[in-house]
Amino acid sequence: MTDSTVLLTDHYELTMLQAALRSGAAHRRSVFELFPRRLPEGRRYGVVAGVGRALDAIEAFRFDDAALAALEDVVDGPTLEWLASYRFSGDVWGYAEGEAYFPYSPLLIVESTFAEAVLLETLLLSIYNHDSAVASAASRMTLAAGDRPCIEMGSRRTHEEAAVAAARAAYVAGFAASSNLAARQRYGVPTTGTSAHSFTLLHDTEADAFRAQVASLGAGTTLLVDTYDVAEAVRVAVEVAGPELGAVRLDSGDLAALATAVRAQLDSLGATSTRIIVTSDLDEHAIAALAAAPVDGYGVGTELVTGSGHPTCGFVYKLVARADDAGEMVSVAKRSVDKASVGGRKYALRRRSSGGVAEAEVIGIGHRPDDDGDDRSLLVPLVESGEVVGREPLDDARERHAASRSELPIAVQQMSRGEPAIPTVHE
Amino acid sequence: MTDSTVLLTDHYELTMLQAALRSGAAHRRSVFELFPRRLPEGRRYGVVAGVGRALDAIEAFRFDDAALAALEDVVDGPTLEWLASYRFSGDVWGYAEGEAYFPYSPLLIVESTFAEAVLLETLLLSIYNHDSAVASAASRMTLAAGDRPCIEMGSRRTHEEAAVAAARAAYVAGFAASSNLAARQRYGVPTTGTSAHSFTLLHDTEADAFRAQVASLGAGTTLLVDTYDVAEAVRVAVEVAGPELGAVRLDSGDLAALATAVRAQLDSLGATSTRIIVTSDLDEHAIAALAAAPVDGYGVGTELVTGSGHPTCGFVYKLVARADDAGEMVSVAKRSVDKASVGGRKYALRRRSSGGVAEAEVIGIGHRPDDDGDDRSLLVPLVESGEVVGREPLDDARERHAASRSELPIAVQQMSRGEPAIPTVHE
Repeated sequence: MTDSTVLLTDHYELTMLQAALRSGAAHRRSVFELFPRRLPEGRRYGVVAGVGRALDAIEAFRFDDAALAALEDVVDGPTLEWLASYRFSGDVWGYAEGEAYFPYSPLLIVESTFAEAVLLETLLLSIYNHDSAVASAASRMTLAAGDRPCIEMGSRRTHEEAAVAAARAAYVAGFAASSNLAARQRYGVPTTGTSAHSFTLLHDTEADAFRAQVASLGAGTTLLVDTYDVAEAVRVAVEVAGPELGAVRLDSGDLAALATAVRAQLDSLGATSTRIIVTSDLDEHAIAALAAAPVDGYGVGTELVTGSGHPTCGFVYKLVARADDAGEMVSVAKRSVDKASVGGRKYALRRRSSGGVAEAEVIGIGHRPDDDGDDRSLLVPLVESGEVVGREPLDDARERHAASRSELPIAVQQMSRGEPAIPTVHE
Repeated sequence: MTDSTVLLTDHYELTMLQAALRSGAAHRRSVFELFPRRLPEGRRYGVVAGVGRALDAIEAFRFDDAALAALEDVVDGPTLEWLASYRFSGDVWGYAEGEAYFPYSPLLIVESTFAEAVLLETLLLSIYNHDSAVASAASRMTLAAGDRPCIEMGSRRTHEEAAVAAARAAYVAGFAASSNLAARQRYGVPTTGTSAHSFTLLHDTEADAFRAQVASLGAGTTLLVDTYDVAEAVRVAVEVAGPELGAVRLDSGDLAALATAVRAQLDSLGATSTRIIVTSDLDEHAIAALAAAPVDGYGVGTELVTGSGHPTCGFVYKLVARADDAGEMVSVAKRSVDKASVGGRKYALRRRSSGGVAEAEVIGIGHRPDDDGDDRSLLVPLVESGEVVGREPLDDARERHAASRSELPIAVQQMSRGEPAIPTVHE
């Protein structure tokens, strides 16, 4: 086994490397681009996430003895030898984490030799495709929730490591907290928790369970009130915890009607500051539908970690330019039906009105598009000559997302399906 | 950081533990059950996967110093002390890996103290929900493909660690191979690969690229023929590799029509044994639709790793019985609207006709259902007194899946939506 990231890749990356080392083309200077051909159907914008994780992964991309041993039956001796000294020495530019994206946004530009850059393909795509899918869904949820906090609690519905990345991506896109303790440890994502039905069922009575929870976690805790009868549970909850009870959680039934009834009951019991947290297969539409209900927070699980119907972004990683024999860079593009790509090194900016509203995603091919002064350049340096330079605190990405989303046209606020919020223009 | 699996969990598992340790209820003997309330809409059966990974995770579930340090702000001192010596000492029974499942199949029965068993909830659900979602989709694909091999190549469309688990789950459900090298290293899943469009674009001409690939990987390799013009590429491919060319890959366009044309062209060039591999957003329906086309293998990516529309299984982990003060086991169940559970320790068998065809999923509550001689008991011991006893070679799970699927009623062969293939009966 190895802790390095090099085997989190496709077999063909290695055999292509072998063939290119033999043909000599492996050392040609190359530019790869990671980009989306489209947004998920009906979505107005996407959100870039996973940048920080990708930088960690590039740094850890070294072939240790265990990895080389695992590749002995995959590639030949000269290739293994080349891999043993592998170290990415190229440059990477990209959209900063949290940024909104649109069709053909050049999210990553990787420039190096073909050999060095092709090996990163699968891993970069895995990270970007997953994390951005979660962040894109999360952003719509926090938009629908407005000032009410969203709490990520989907760990159990996705792969255990994907869960950690999902918690991180949700935080970037405005979630207030997560249930995932590894995300807390690794990325400093705030965590929070209530309790499960099993805790209530474990005790002889609901009152015993509430007493146990309050005794240990204080009156500020959140009590789960739908194991048996909600009205009775709310009564007991306030009796046990007093009117300082932090919150109650509703996890089933007609949440809008229940929240209204529970709010009235809590108020009548003097627990006017006790909050109501709802959970139960929420997505951005359910959150929006609860806007008028007296709800104080949303716990979101399944639909968040599965990208609310779009669990992957469909990003691709394509060779767009490479040197010829004379060392001159040549644009390249495949012509496959429905999958054609646009050759050439890309630059990108977000065109904005003088009022700061986004108007277009402008992509320059081979040159930087003109900035009229109100625009915002989108590609930032992430890796320079193999050194990671784009690391930043996760809260910076979170703030960037809020800013990036707030400059999108008002149409974005709609949950209805539609075209991308701004057009993509190639210049 | 820690390599242990203990932080891949929800905050509330730990705070519930703390409260239950304080109330004393933590030490009550408890039975948790992991089960699905339903199949994904329209699906006829599901496939259990992740069992082997879950056993690894239980074994690694120890709170080392790094994990305990990370929990210092989450739980109190007595709880940290208890965690430091945590070791699962209970028993686990479950459906063996690869087995088909139906609504309410008791996939895992975890019996221990509440404290020991509740801590495993999130991690077990993550593994089972993810891996079984992939295996359930994969099984429909291999069913649709019949004797033609399916190759898993979706790593880039999902989280990088989920990709490894997906490759493993797909193999259990009959996929012949994967592209994922970590799955090869960790689980012995066979890997295979062709090449990407970037490899063709890297070289000055398509012929140069094909020559480079054949020189390095031999004529038995698979050449990608849709970068520019398919007919021209096929001509050049056979010219370069000779009629011994292993295979060509089509990754775009109307695959049925293209495959037919390419088959004719290959045959006319004498390359009668050259195989045709198709890829390009295939799912079980696309595979079925290609049954009449001259296709020799399917490469499946996105739709496999995202569970073909159902990226998670929705399994839950519920307390179904626990001891009372006298040490007597008591069945428990919540009454939440739409989410009621069935209390009591479960047993399960697959009722079969004398001809060996599955007729019902029979679940006994508190007792083993009667076996009429043709039936098959479904729960096997996985962990006994904390020791893992259910480990097996991955190929055993793969063979079990083939056998389990083959005994399902013929209706399962249909890709159309429908009810579960057999009813679930509580006895």
